[in-house]
Amino acid sequence: MSSTDSGGTRLDPWFESYAERAHNMRASEIRALFSVANRPEVVSLAGGMPYIGGLPLEEIGEMMRRLIVERGEVALQYGSGQGDENLRELITQVMALEGISAHPDDVVVTTGSQQALDLVTKIFINPGDVVVAEAPSYVGALGVFRAHEADVVHVPMDADGLIPGDLDATLTRLAAEGRTVKFLYTVPNYHNPGGVTLSLERRPQVLEICARHRVLVLEDNPYGLLGFDAEPLPAMRSMSDDGVIYLGSFSKTFAPGFRVGWAVAPHAVREKLVLASESAILCPSNASQLAIATYLEHSDWQGQIKKFREQYRERRDAIIESLEEHIPSATWNVPAGGFYVWVKLPPGIDSKSMLPRAVTARVAYVPGTAFFYDGQGADHLRLSYCYPTPDRIREGVRRLAGVVDAEIETVKIFGTGAAGPGDAVDFPSPNLA
Amino acid sequence: MSSTDSGGTRLDPWFESYAERAHNMRASEIRALFSVANRPEVVSLAGGMPYIGGLPLEEIGEMMRRLIVERGEVALQYGSGQGDENLRELITQVMALEGISAHPDDVVVTTGSQQALDLVTKIFINPGDVVVAEAPSYVGALGVFRAHEADVVHVPMDADGLIPGDLDATLTRLAAEGRTVKFLYTVPNYHNPGGVTLSLERRPQVLEICARHRVLVLEDNPYGLLGFDAEPLPAMRSMSDDGVIYLGSFSKTFAPGFRVGWAVAPHAVREKLVLASESAILCPSNASQLAIATYLEHSDWQGQIKKFREQYRERRDAIIESLEEHIPSATWNVPAGGFYVWVKLPPGIDSKSMLPRAVTARVAYVPGTAFFYDGQGADHLRLSYCYPTPDRIREGVRRLAGVVDAEIETVKIFGTGAAGPGDAVDFPSPNLA
Repeated sequence: MSSTDSGGTRLDPWFESYAERAHNMRASEIRALFSVANRPEVVSLAGGMPYIGGLPLEEIGEMMRRLIVERGEVALQYGSGQGDENLRELITQVMALEGISAHPDDVVVTTGSQQALDLVTKIFINPGDVVVAEAPSYVGALGVFRAHEADVVHVPMDADGLIPGDLDATLTRLAAEGRTVKFLYTVPNYHNPGGVTLSLERRPQVLEICARHRVLVLEDNPYGLLGFDAEPLPAMRSMSDDGVIYLGSFSKTFAPGFRVGWAVAPHAVREKLVLASESAILCPSNASQLAIATYLEHSDWQGQIKKFREQYRERRDAIIESLEEHIPSATWNVPAGGFYVWVKLPPGIDSKSMLPRAVTARVAYVPGTAFFYDGQGADHLRLSYCYPTPDRIREGVRRLAGVVDAEIETVKIFGTGAAGPGDAVDFPSPNLA
Repeated sequence: MSSTDSGGTRLDPWFESYAERAHNMRASEIRALFSVANRPEVVSLAGGMPYIGGLPLEEIGEMMRRLIVERGEVALQYGSGQGDENLRELITQVMALEGISAHPDDVVVTTGSQQALDLVTKIFINPGDVVVAEAPSYVGALGVFRAHEADVVHVPMDADGLIPGDLDATLTRLAAEGRTVKFLYTVPNYHNPGGVTLSLERRPQVLEICARHRVLVLEDNPYGLLGFDAEPLPAMRSMSDDGVIYLGSFSKTFAPGFRVGWAVAPHAVREKLVLASESAILCPSNASQLAIATYLEHSDWQGQIKKFREQYRERRDAIIESLEEHIPSATWNVPAGGFYVWVKLPPGIDSKSMLPRAVTARVAYVPGTAFFYDGQGADHLRLSYCYPTPDRIREGVRRLAGVVDAEIETVKIFGTGAAGPGDAVDFPSPNLA
């Protein structure tokens, strides 16, 4: 690189020392906006923060006290790289709710499922390798793939999730082009940001297509237990032991503050994941792991998930009703679970260039471009209904409606919304989780 | 790779899919031995586990209870990628004890300082780049460098730490060879495993040499506050803001179970570290960070460190006295702080091939080969005195003496100890921390 190709050069004495991959790590242009969006006067429909206020804090506090007093010499010590054995056993019981039959030895505990994403990518991706992913996809996963210099090829979804025929055609085309596809990254339940769920019928089809093309399936499932109406569908991992790496998390069903997620992988892959995790962090936090295990053993955690489902359903209803009332010119899916509504804007509006005006109007969202590798998505935005109260959600949508209406007027007069390149958001902030 | 070059091929359906770097991740041959070494009947002088039994568990438990009850909506939620601002402020106060003047904005909180090591390596190392490091060096750092396909070139130490003249000569030689050296990795205080401390006089010399060669200094300092006799020396970071990335940890001065460490970096590098950390884990655990912050704010943490120093000094004295009494044929340094004694064995004994016999005799250590990139070190072993009681330490050294005496007899008869290649330990286990 030349020494004048970036303002960073003069300001950063180590600019020329960075690894190639570090040049893929850029601060998101919308990051500054999000620090504004976190002000209390702004209704944030941007973040994926769960509604922690619903947890029994007195009970959890007393559990933590007893854990430290009675088992502090373990909880405060180093643990194993693979994770606490008792917690791994309990995790297999959680996964049984989605039909998964796994042995505790197949489980690797990680610092949130984000770390599992990073480790899987680290052990499989050489620069230039391809990851196939839904269009759109979770922004935090795209950030990991970019950091490891992967290329991402998107495959469309419809109301039933990833479209098998398009997946097959894409993998066939990539093979013909000589590209190396390492895995399919998929969020089958209550997709982030798409809100849709892969139908039961399509699950074995997707597995068959990937097996035929010798492509691993990376099944990322943070929201599977948060359906509003129906029992959870069987996980893809429940239909294939060898072809799927499954990622789970306690961040949405309990609390993200402990940073505990996990991966379930075919045996030899699991061994690589443990080695990669030991290199990255030595071991996950024993304090966090034992806190989660205590909670699973001594709390009515399934009852708590039921409460969360009811709370999130109420919020989903609030946002959908508000959209119908205030922004009828847009279109959206009605999510049956999870945290997100994926909204298509009226023609001509660019969600990214509109964002500063929305924040000025004291409402925040994530522009659709964040969820694509290739600059698509300016006609969409993601709204999260997980964190604000129903009243705040309604107020937020009202404010957003005012901004959208003004954009529509601009489009009428000038033929388009304010100009703005559709740059992707490069790295996740927890506010986008 | 050929499909027959490893037994892993037939057992691992995804063997051919791994990234190049994953082939550098191999389970250590001594890993199986360490699972045996963790049995209660074995005196482990192998692990770097701190003496958690010395902590006031009732007090810490009550702190945790109040933290969750009073601030649970923050402690259990996602936090910022850079880490909790209040904790970062408190960390600057901890570092002031070693002369460092840093702004909280310069600090990045990580999942143990191991994660900071991984992130620094990730943003600086292209495959084939060189890291210069002391001979020997911390096994967990070598594992990170190997995972990122770095080459490590060792520079000798003496009783005053890294030898400046040798460092200068090494960097000059590498430059002449056209190699790209990205940073010097150094543990200046109570070195792991060497036990020595870089003298005050040499610190500016090392900084000057690295600055002249345009090489960053990665100063890893988990043990700096654990000196037995003297006040801490000024950190190298206190002498250079722009040339040093400093790594700190609460694992040895408080408790490793929370997995909280940190990095202090020049401003532009700090920004890259935050982006890399968000990609790897989204954010560090708020529960852990707020627990540490509460402990620093409401406990006599400096008094606790003083207690730890006294406890570890007593254990250091026990191991040195036992070595003098039972293994006079070996040589060692007398560490003035930290956790480790670096022992040179009598001629002809191979510490790695001796290890199975030591474990059979119910004592464990880490062979010297673990601490080199290049197979050196078979004539050394590392003994840790941090975890067992003084009586157990004495018993462990007695057992080890019996094994060494038997090896000496073998050498007398056959001219050498049992044969065994000096393979390095590839990845860290927390037991080696």
